[in-house]
Amino acid sequence: MIDFRPFYQQIATSNLSAWLETLPLQLKRWEKQTHGEYAKWAKVIDFLPQLSAERIDLKQAVRAESDTPLSEGQRQRLIYHLKQLMPWRKGPYHLHGVHIDCEWRSDFKWERVLPHLAPLRDRTVLDVGCGSGYHMWRMLGEGAATVIGIDPTELFLCQFEAVRKLLNNDRRANLIPLGIEEMQALGVFDTVFSMGVLYHRKSPLDHLTQLRSQLRPGGELVLETLVVEGDVNTVLVPADRYAKMKNVYFIPSVDCLINWLQKTGFHNVRCVDVATTSLQEQRKTEWLENESLIDFLDPQDQSKTVEGYPAPQRAVILANK
Amino acid sequence: MIDFRPFYQQIATSNLSAWLETLPLQLKRWEKQTHGEYAKWAKVIDFLPQLSAERIDLKQAVRAESDTPLSEGQRQRLIYHLKQLMPWRKGPYHLHGVHIDCEWRSDFKWERVLPHLAPLRDRTVLDVGCGSGYHMWRMLGEGAATVIGIDPTELFLCQFEAVRKLLNNDRRANLIPLGIEEMQALGVFDTVFSMGVLYHRKSPLDHLTQLRSQLRPGGELVLETLVVEGDVNTVLVPADRYAKMKNVYFIPSVDCLINWLQKTGFHNVRCVDVATTSLQEQRKTEWLENESLIDFLDPQDQSKTVEGYPAPQRAVILANK
Amino acid sequence: MIDFRPFYQQIATSNLSAWLETLPLQLKRWEKQTHGEYAKWAKVIDFLPQLSAERIDLKQAVRAESDTPLSEGQRQRLIYHLKQLMPWRKGPYHLHGVHIDCEWRSDFKWERVLPHLAPLRDRTVLDVGCGSGYHMWRMLGEGAATVIGIDPTELFLCQFEAVRKLLNNDRRANLIPLGIEEMQALGVFDTVFSMGVLYHRKSPLDHLTQLRSQLRPGGELVLETLVVEGDVNTVLVPADRYAKMKNVYFIPSVDCLINWLQKTGFHNVRCVDVATTSLQEQRKTEWLENESLIDFLDPQDQSKTVEGYPAPQRAVILANK
Amino acid sequence: MIDFRPFYQQIATSNLSAWLETLPLQLKRWEKQTHGEYAKWAKVIDFLPQLSAERIDLKQAVRAESDTPLSEGQRQRLIYHLKQLMPWRKGPYHLHGVHIDCEWRSDFKWERVLPHLAPLRDRTVLDVGCGSGYHMWRMLGEGAATVIGIDPTELFLCQFEAVRKLLNNDRRANLIPLGIEEMQALGVFDTVFSMGVLYHRKSPLDHLTQLRSQLRPGGELVLETLVVEGDVNTVLVPADRYAKMKNVYFIPSVDCLINWLQKTGFHNVRCVDVATTSLQEQRKTEWLENESLIDFLDPQDQSKTVEGYPAPQRAVILANK
Repeated sequence: MIDFRPFYQQIATSNLSAWLETLPLQLKRWEKQTHGEYAKWAKVIDFLPQLSAERIDLKQAVRAESDTPLSEGQRQRLIYHLKQLMPWRKGPYHLHGVHIDCEWRSDFKWERVLPHLAPLRDRTVLDVGCGSGYHMWRMLGEGAATVIGIDPTELFLCQFEAVRKLLNNDRRANLIPLGIEEMQALGVFDTVFSMGVLYHRKSPLDHLTQLRSQLRPGGELVLETLVVEGDVNTVLVPADRYAKMKNVYFIPSVDCLINWLQKTGFHNVRCVDVATTSLQEQRKTEWLENESLIDFLDPQDQSKTVEGYPAPQRAVILANK
Repeated sequence: MIDFRPFYQQIATSNLSAWLETLPLQLKRWEKQTHGEYAKWAKVIDFLPQLSAERIDLKQAVRAESDTPLSEGQRQRLIYHLKQLMPWRKGPYHLHGVHIDCEWRSDFKWERVLPHLAPLRDRTVLDVGCGSGYHMWRMLGEGAATVIGIDPTELFLCQFEAVRKLLNNDRRANLIPLGIEEMQALGVFDTVFSMGVLYHRKSPLDHLTQLRSQLRPGGELVLETLVVEGDVNTVLVPADRYAKMKNVYFIPSVDCLINWLQKTGFHNVRCVDVATTSLQEQRKTEWLENESLIDFLDPQDQSKTVEGYPAPQRAVILANK
Repeated sequence: MIDFRPFYQQIATSNLSAWLETLPLQLKRWEKQTHGEYAKWAKVIDFLPQLSAERIDLKQAVRAESDTPLSEGQRQRLIYHLKQLMPWRKGPYHLHGVHIDCEWRSDFKWERVLPHLAPLRDRTVLDVGCGSGYHMWRMLGEGAATVIGIDPTELFLCQFEAVRKLLNNDRRANLIPLGIEEMQALGVFDTVFSMGVLYHRKSPLDHLTQLRSQLRPGGELVLETLVVEGDVNTVLVPADRYAKMKNVYFIPSVDCLINWLQKTGFHNVRCVDVATTSLQEQRKTEWLENESLIDFLDPQDQSKTVEGYPAPQRAVILANK
Repeated sequence: MIDFRPFYQQIATSNLSAWLETLPLQLKRWEKQTHGEYAKWAKVIDFLPQLSAERIDLKQAVRAESDTPLSEGQRQRLIYHLKQLMPWRKGPYHLHGVHIDCEWRSDFKWERVLPHLAPLRDRTVLDVGCGSGYHMWRMLGEGAATVIGIDPTELFLCQFEAVRKLLNNDRRANLIPLGIEEMQALGVFDTVFSMGVLYHRKSPLDHLTQLRSQLRPGGELVLETLVVEGDVNTVLVPADRYAKMKNVYFIPSVDCLINWLQKTGFHNVRCVDVATTSLQEQRKTEWLENESLIDFLDPQDQSKTVEGYPAPQRAVILANK
């Protein structure tokens, strides 16, 4: 099983130390009720070879290279193990000659978001709903001091730990398998990311309040979520599914979202990017057996989902506490 | 202090008996942290005379009359005591010659709602956010077997108990000082009312889910709340105050509200009434020292609130579990 | 399953009403984790015939008689059902021609205890470790107003409810399946019995404190337990078993026990009876398949247990809060 | 206030790491409800000079010496600060020329206990009821790897931290302000000391069980407590005070105590020392304003306490889990 004790040691004397009041007990309880597959996935990490990379690039990509490349047999074994952790949704990763070509080109999103951020150098960062952690490595690539991702899905934790092992076991980033609503309000992060989470929350205002409670005064929120066209009073609530996803609740317009953030107490709220998700950004690869965006859109009219709602469009909003 | 033990006795062998698992402990804790004025207000109830009414009308009004009317001195003393419990918001009450002329003509609302309801005869009814309980008495007037109101405000509890005492101490209705979010899911009520509550909830979908959890399968929800004009995607979220009220969150259109109810799992959802609140329905009286509707509207244009939002308009929606 | 709701109704407006703060939730949790046999035992109670007794004697015995005696076939069926609830440890019961001849002649103990008690007439009584409840009925026979027994063993509860059904469903006595250490401190009982419990407690002083917390000021404690000969400093702690019983901890001398009671805050502490348990009082019958006293004593020397400790000797101590 | 975060960091990756599940939250709550004087005492530690000792002796005494002794003025200031933390009960300490001559010559007890112990070298040790921590330093002097003391008294914590600061801020020993009954069962200590605690426990068997739950299998218990003369069945329970102490419960004979330990599941139980406390070992000094042993004994007969009980006699018992 995955060992969180080195993380406890890291935070014990940091500004995250108060988290020790709740986290170790929560993770002990979490471990007791993990998914049946978790033990199997965690074992995959043990099976991965202990490789040493001479070159790590987190600035332009998430890439590890060694002076002595793997033999083709070693590479195939590495692919075999990593495919035990499918589906790989967020990427891509280039690790010792293996290209994990994930469903999402998360680097596209990063390119859209990064230019607008307060510089991440030396910052303590929280990434809510971090998935396999792709952006967490890119945050380190920008000089962040510490990056914490939270995501309750066991598979993503195991993907993250597999990638970490192949990145020379870098411990500056850590994924904690909790939901934001379970997380103690720490009020110390310099930057908090919530990307692709808000529309899954039954109570969006509570989600914004929880995000705010993790920021230090003056800290920066980076909120990315689905939006629709419309004025300050426009919110789409899908009656049932949206793009075949269950658990989609509120999809506001950009103006509406800005209003919500102001009502929650954020300052300096501004939208820095709106983009329609392209079939290049989200698509089926060999690292994914499930359906992808092409299957979620109306085959007659790709501007609509199969349910007839507007096709996915995503905005990035920044705000300060 | 107000004694809830007769209520516990009433429910112990009824279909509400499971409530004993949580309610007595909750009310004990509630009592320990009541508002400083609560003890004073509760004493007012003791000071009220023990009057016996020969004629009680709950069908056309809330009225108690005795064959021997009070002397003018007695009547003035009764008024004196009842005014200790100001402000009186929901009414009117006609009790032994005293006309409690409250801010709200709640009988107007009742007239609009009643014709559309499944008959209340013999029903077990929950009234969420019941205020002083005016509608609870009217529900009994329609033949309801048991009416439970919940409202966390101590003053309303004391107003309710004062009225009860003057209604021959009728124990078929009971006010429990809890919020809906604290109340154990009982799943047994035939009819659940939530009137004037939804727009005060930070998470309207959670509110609807809580209301649903109190209904028996097939039971009827009566939802009354502020609405705006618009289509299924229209929701007003006031940036700050609305009609000078703090804590106003979501004001949807009727279509939007219907959509939310369907998404929450309600069937047979239909809007039966939409009405703009008139200056006859909500106004200042001698039983109220605060401001009222006239003060909340733009003096130049009564179709707008002082903040410039549409003036209050309220819809009644029925739905079944 | 056994329905405790009539009991909740009984206590709701009595001086036991505060118990509603904890009891319903505790019993709900208790029911979820009952012994696998409990459902079967509870069904036995349903199978018992609904008989009406013209004559009930609780003063001289626990006896129910009808003007029309059962046929032999009916009697055999009654015996058959009652034997599903074996072993019967505390008795005897005489119910509609069936003599439940239990392991213990609990009437012997009652004869020794009763003459010393403050009269039970109109008292609210608690019997801690009540077993099948034999003494509870005898307490009612002495005029007690309400008798509550507590004992966590599911079988005893079912035996109690079976006897109750054959005693015209008398509801003045109630058995609650809790241990004393789980029971809310009520501080209202006039008399508290703890017979045959203290030596099973790992912490005897905590047991005495718990008993005291159930008494009203001035109330009477009736404590019966195993004792040894010795002075104020003498306590036998069996290294392993005592008379083949596991979980025997402290067996003090009478003087030692009196000292403990005084230290715990009791007044007017006095020993009113010491008796060696005879082979007539505790013995094997057809209502019991297990071993009994004769098997627990040294066959060569009946003044000793098989482990070589002094044979069981029991004292009755009275004290006031 | 005293900062426990370095301790959390120390244990995070040790065999004590499971303690993080409960300790940080317990200590946060503890801090909120500390004694009014605690803040003042904690400040005394800040006022103490940061001295560097070239010679630390923990093997023969608890002594810190510098190559450059303090000036007389500096020494007087040091004495002044340390006396803010009176009464000093357990010692003596020799710190930079200041001799803290405590009520108890705890070195006497250590001389009696040490020869019998399994060697402490490299052991993880728990000292329950550690007082100011005198023995903890001596355990380090014997080569223990880590020593944890627990004692809920805030003053002792501050005395401990003051001594630690004057011992070059040695962090191998740590005092945690909890009672043993609040401490999570860790089951990892090689040696557990309980000296002077058992007779203050209302339930001695529960205390022994708690001590056992902290030991690793095979670990050693060192139990020191008051004893009386007598056989396996002899236990003195003072009716009120003993040697003017409140809260004295069970004072067993040595044989009785051995029996209790065996019953609790300990093996290899043996008494290694019995000693009457002398007036040299416990006496009044200038570091103590309270009464001491001389005041607790019968002036006519020093073999008795003022209450007429046998004068204090203490045994040391060793046992293994």
